[in-house]
Amino acid sequence: MRLVCSQNQLASNLSLVSRAVASRPTHPVLANILFNADAKLQTLGMTAFDLNLGIQVTFGADVTVGGSTTLPARLLNDIVSRLPDEDITLSIDDDIATISCGSGRYEVHGLPVQEFPELPKIDADGETTYLPVESLLLGLDGSLFAASTDETKRILTGVHVTASADRLEFAATDGHRLAVVQTNFLPADDLPVPVDEKARLEVTIPARALRELERMLNVQTEGAIAVRFDRSQMIFQSANQILTSRLLDGSYPNYRALIPSQFERQVTLERKVLVSALERIAVLADQKNNIVKISFNTTGQEISLSVEAPDVATGRESLPAQISGGDLEIAFNVKYLLDGLKAIDSNDIQLKLNNPTSPAIVTPIGSAQMTYLIMPVQIRS
Amino acid sequence: MRLVCSQNQLASNLSLVSRAVASRPTHPVLANILFNADAKLQTLGMTAFDLNLGIQVTFGADVTVGGSTTLPARLLNDIVSRLPDEDITLSIDDDIATISCGSGRYEVHGLPVQEFPELPKIDADGETTYLPVESLLLGLDGSLFAASTDETKRILTGVHVTASADRLEFAATDGHRLAVVQTNFLPADDLPVPVDEKARLEVTIPARALRELERMLNVQTEGAIAVRFDRSQMIFQSANQILTSRLLDGSYPNYRALIPSQFERQVTLERKVLVSALERIAVLADQKNNIVKISFNTTGQEISLSVEAPDVATGRESLPAQISGGDLEIAFNVKYLLDGLKAIDSNDIQLKLNNPTSPAIVTPIGSAQMTYLIMPVQIRS
Repeated sequence: MRLVCSQNQLASNLSLVSRAVASRPTHPVLANILFNADAKLQTLGMTAFDLNLGIQVTFGADVTVGGSTTLPARLLNDIVSRLPDEDITLSIDDDIATISCGSGRYEVHGLPVQEFPELPKIDADGETTYLPVESLLLGLDGSLFAASTDETKRILTGVHVTASADRLEFAATDGHRLAVVQTNFLPADDLPVPVDEKARLEVTIPARALRELERMLNVQTEGAIAVRFDRSQMIFQSANQILTSRLLDGSYPNYRALIPSQFERQVTLERKVLVSALERIAVLADQKNNIVKISFNTTGQEISLSVEAPDVATGRESLPAQISGGDLEIAFNVKYLLDGLKAIDSNDIQLKLNNPTSPAIVTPIGSAQMTYLIMPVQIRS
Repeated sequence: MRLVCSQNQLASNLSLVSRAVASRPTHPVLANILFNADAKLQTLGMTAFDLNLGIQVTFGADVTVGGSTTLPARLLNDIVSRLPDEDITLSIDDDIATISCGSGRYEVHGLPVQEFPELPKIDADGETTYLPVESLLLGLDGSLFAASTDETKRILTGVHVTASADRLEFAATDGHRLAVVQTNFLPADDLPVPVDEKARLEVTIPARALRELERMLNVQTEGAIAVRFDRSQMIFQSANQILTSRLLDGSYPNYRALIPSQFERQVTLERKVLVSALERIAVLADQKNNIVKISFNTTGQEISLSVEAPDVATGRESLPAQISGGDLEIAFNVKYLLDGLKAIDSNDIQLKLNNPTSPAIVTPIGSAQMTYLIMPVQIRS
């Protein structure tokens, strides 16, 4: 194997695939990246796979001799990222790579290709569909943050994605709050292949893989991305990148049943003003269980946020609001409330409530269809 | 006490003094900042003191009622930094502060002023002198990095500063390397008070205090700063800031004796090229004791840097150099070498050496007078 490519391209693609390299590899080869130089196509492919998440990228290179090997991800990244932005010559002999660039020459020991696990393949009867990138990004932005980061919560560490012929729905919950985003499935007619109306998708995808997908899509924010899946695996494929992920096993909670259908009170608020006030109040709430008390004053058409940390400090913020449905005092975990408000990008939001013990929801006004449900915290009066 | 000041000024000054608040206070009041509002001068003074390092700032405020109290540094910082950039009203009653700004109102519990330790004062027979800010910054930039960060090394955790009538010298060493900077004492005639020729200064100042001084001087980079000291304390004073520090006890090593007076070999190198090559080589050196081998090739007028980490990787970088005095192979800790080269700001540097076991020095060419001494590492050939 022998090729020449630009330092810039090699470095950026290395750092991209490296995100799928296991942080604590169970086998030495899992700390490596698989290199595959194709002399016919004049491309260099790189693959990393931690047995759950896999990332493969392909880019143009001047390949004189094709071939493949696996090389240590971290060491290679560290060297290549520091090389000057010139042409790099990479040649591999007996799984030892020689990297020459400018004044430097490095030899790095690799491991045989045979030890590297193959990326999962989807059976012939697996489904293929195309998802619009814009809808995917909208859905991920509004849901990913609410997935659980606690690995013992298994299915809750993923985002539940449901696609029907005309709608894509993303849901994530960690048991304390729930974020649901609905987007259109078919925003434009530029999809490369007509969507099969029967191709209904209902899967729970690990949040970690979706965060990488988000990163990958933020580069290509238009068009559609091909998705193939079977019962246990999912593959996202764009022009020069492939992301594979196992799916989470088990049945996702019936979250739609949690969202109340009627609300006694509705409050409209300016989102940024509310976020700033909550961030200040959060400083004090931090001293005491993160609980913030919110009072809705119908007569004054204002809400006040307050926190009391006895013997340390107390704080109160008052904000104008459009309130219908009567006064109420309710308490929330300020961090959960802030998470949801920050994931919304509309100017105004609507807060819908019933009473101090039943779930409240936050929705954006005049933008994407998102529902953020949050459980109140009971307080002694 | 009652005053109005701008959020911007209060926040920036709070964050400045907070740097002298003890991270693990041995007494509750040491987690606080002393506030002092002067109705006559229309100023607010804030003081933090961790019993070693003290910082005091004073700035203009609209003081209606003078007075003083102490308030928790961290909580106050967290709240004030998040307030909108508007006028803040601060009033204190019975050591409880009320902060009002825009829509928010916060009450923070303080502690009585009597508990707060006084900043050290210099005896009447202590010396006062004025140091040019530019020379101070030059000296600190070139020496601070070489002081030991290991608290058990006591005197080596400081920078030794010597001032005579016409020269300022800064020295720092952690036992592995030594940085010495000499600057002019009297660069201009704009010093506010003539320097007393007898005011000879020879002290070892904790690096931590000097890092704060550097931060303080980077705002006011011209003119001179007043310095007062006695046997145990040092006070730096500018128009609206005071920084006090205890001095380190004990006699500083006679570092001048360590610097060889003659060298058999001299090498001139482009600094940035050498730094980049060392940074790449450092990636491999990191795998193996941080040792880099340098070969000086007089015939080819080039040096090569090399690292071998058996079974992992090897690397070699070759750079053009002007070498006089014969070939040599020598090894250094790459981190120490890089530290010194990064603290220099000249384009070219000179490396002076005798043999593989005696100290080498690095000096800038055509800029400040700095000497960086580094001990070689013995290698088996």
